[in-house]
Amino acid sequence: MSVKAVVLLSGGLDSSTVLYYAKADGCNCYAMSFDYQQRHRRELDAAKAIARTAGVIDHQVVTFDLTRWGGSALTDDRIDLPQSRSIEQMSRDIPITYVPARNTIFLSFAVAYAEVLEAERIYIGVNALDYSGYPDCRPDYIAAMQEAFRLGTRQGREGKPIEIVAPLIDLKKTEIIQLGNRLGVPWEKTQSCYAGGERACGVCDSCRLRLAAFAELGLDDPIPYDRVV
Amino acid sequence: MSVKAVVLLSGGLDSSTVLYYAKADGCNCYAMSFDYQQRHRRELDAAKAIARTAGVIDHQVVTFDLTRWGGSALTDDRIDLPQSRSIEQMSRDIPITYVPARNTIFLSFAVAYAEVLEAERIYIGVNALDYSGYPDCRPDYIAAMQEAFRLGTRQGREGKPIEIVAPLIDLKKTEIIQLGNRLGVPWEKTQSCYAGGERACGVCDSCRLRLAAFAELGLDDPIPYDRVV
Repeated sequence: MSVKAVVLLSGGLDSSTVLYYAKADGCNCYAMSFDYQQRHRRELDAAKAIARTAGVIDHQVVTFDLTRWGGSALTDDRIDLPQSRSIEQMSRDIPITYVPARNTIFLSFAVAYAEVLEAERIYIGVNALDYSGYPDCRPDYIAAMQEAFRLGTRQGREGKPIEIVAPLIDLKKTEIIQLGNRLGVPWEKTQSCYAGGERACGVCDSCRLRLAAFAELGLDDPIPYDRVV
Repeated sequence: MSVKAVVLLSGGLDSSTVLYYAKADGCNCYAMSFDYQQRHRRELDAAKAIARTAGVIDHQVVTFDLTRWGGSALTDDRIDLPQSRSIEQMSRDIPITYVPARNTIFLSFAVAYAEVLEAERIYIGVNALDYSGYPDCRPDYIAAMQEAFRLGTRQGREGKPIEIVAPLIDLKKTEIIQLGNRLGVPWEKTQSCYAGGERACGVCDSCRLRLAAFAELGLDDPIPYDRVV
């Protein structure tokens, strides 16, 4: 019997790989994306294209507004995006692109949807190596959310807890790309840039991490960039 | 120095009492309510009136749509509200008015807002005695969410975790009313009914619990009811 899974899909490299990973795991996939008025809402077009290409059963785009209180360069236009930082600079602190409690909100909607679907799993593309500053991307946090979901849901109380699967959590970006290549992820449809322009900027942290990983592997990133430094 | 707190406020009897409790605790209160297309959206008018009366610093009404996937009598019009049930009947199972993962979603938005405000506490009016069927109203669930928030937020990682305060969790409805009376909660502005009509229906589980508690105390509930059985 196949497994029902909710897959959090931003449209970026990591979550697209996770969707293809869940499919390869034998899951019937229900994708979920979020329009939270992020600077890079254009990623939702990528999410829709990838969900369609991967053949998900349903794709929910949940809408709410995190610019109400801001607190991040992704949800407050007055805060500039960091540009042209080295990978070492990115990893040092919690970056200004950290959106307070974003993964907690995403996982909460995912578990609500999973309960109604009676899905067994939630897949999420968090990664603790790159951007090690993000508090809501670490294994201990994911384990704590899983425990809260076990206690706070009907399925959990009935002994069938919903499992949070984070297959990328210990992988380097290069290893994620290698995994995605094996799974046939259509990179040309993905979008990772924080800036939200028509083409990827090439200089935000997200573009730089992605470009550096493709370069390290000697591979071409098939999406167009405004500039590559 | 006074404490900054986010207070989850539905506009009902419990959450209104919690708001006055947080004020009496010496908190600067930031109220937060949710328009999730619930059947009883009218409760938001009550929430606004109470927030104003209590003199909160800010009141966020966060909007999203839980009728997309339904799964509850409060978010799916095709599911009838239970009517005229005895208190014993209500307490037996997880009721159809349980909204999957609702408190998890509410707490997630609260912790996001709290992080941006650098608030120290989140107050929530969950109660484990009445409706003991609700999985997301129990102390072990609240403790698990608190641990997830400690690990998943900037403040938590920096050793200043945001505390979830649930002062009603062990109280009976009659005790909540007694507490609210001491705190001066304006009951006439609160709204507990699930049905969403102009006047409280008097027969849904929420009306019946409320009416039974006022009656047990020999007090009049000052809000108007369509019928009282």
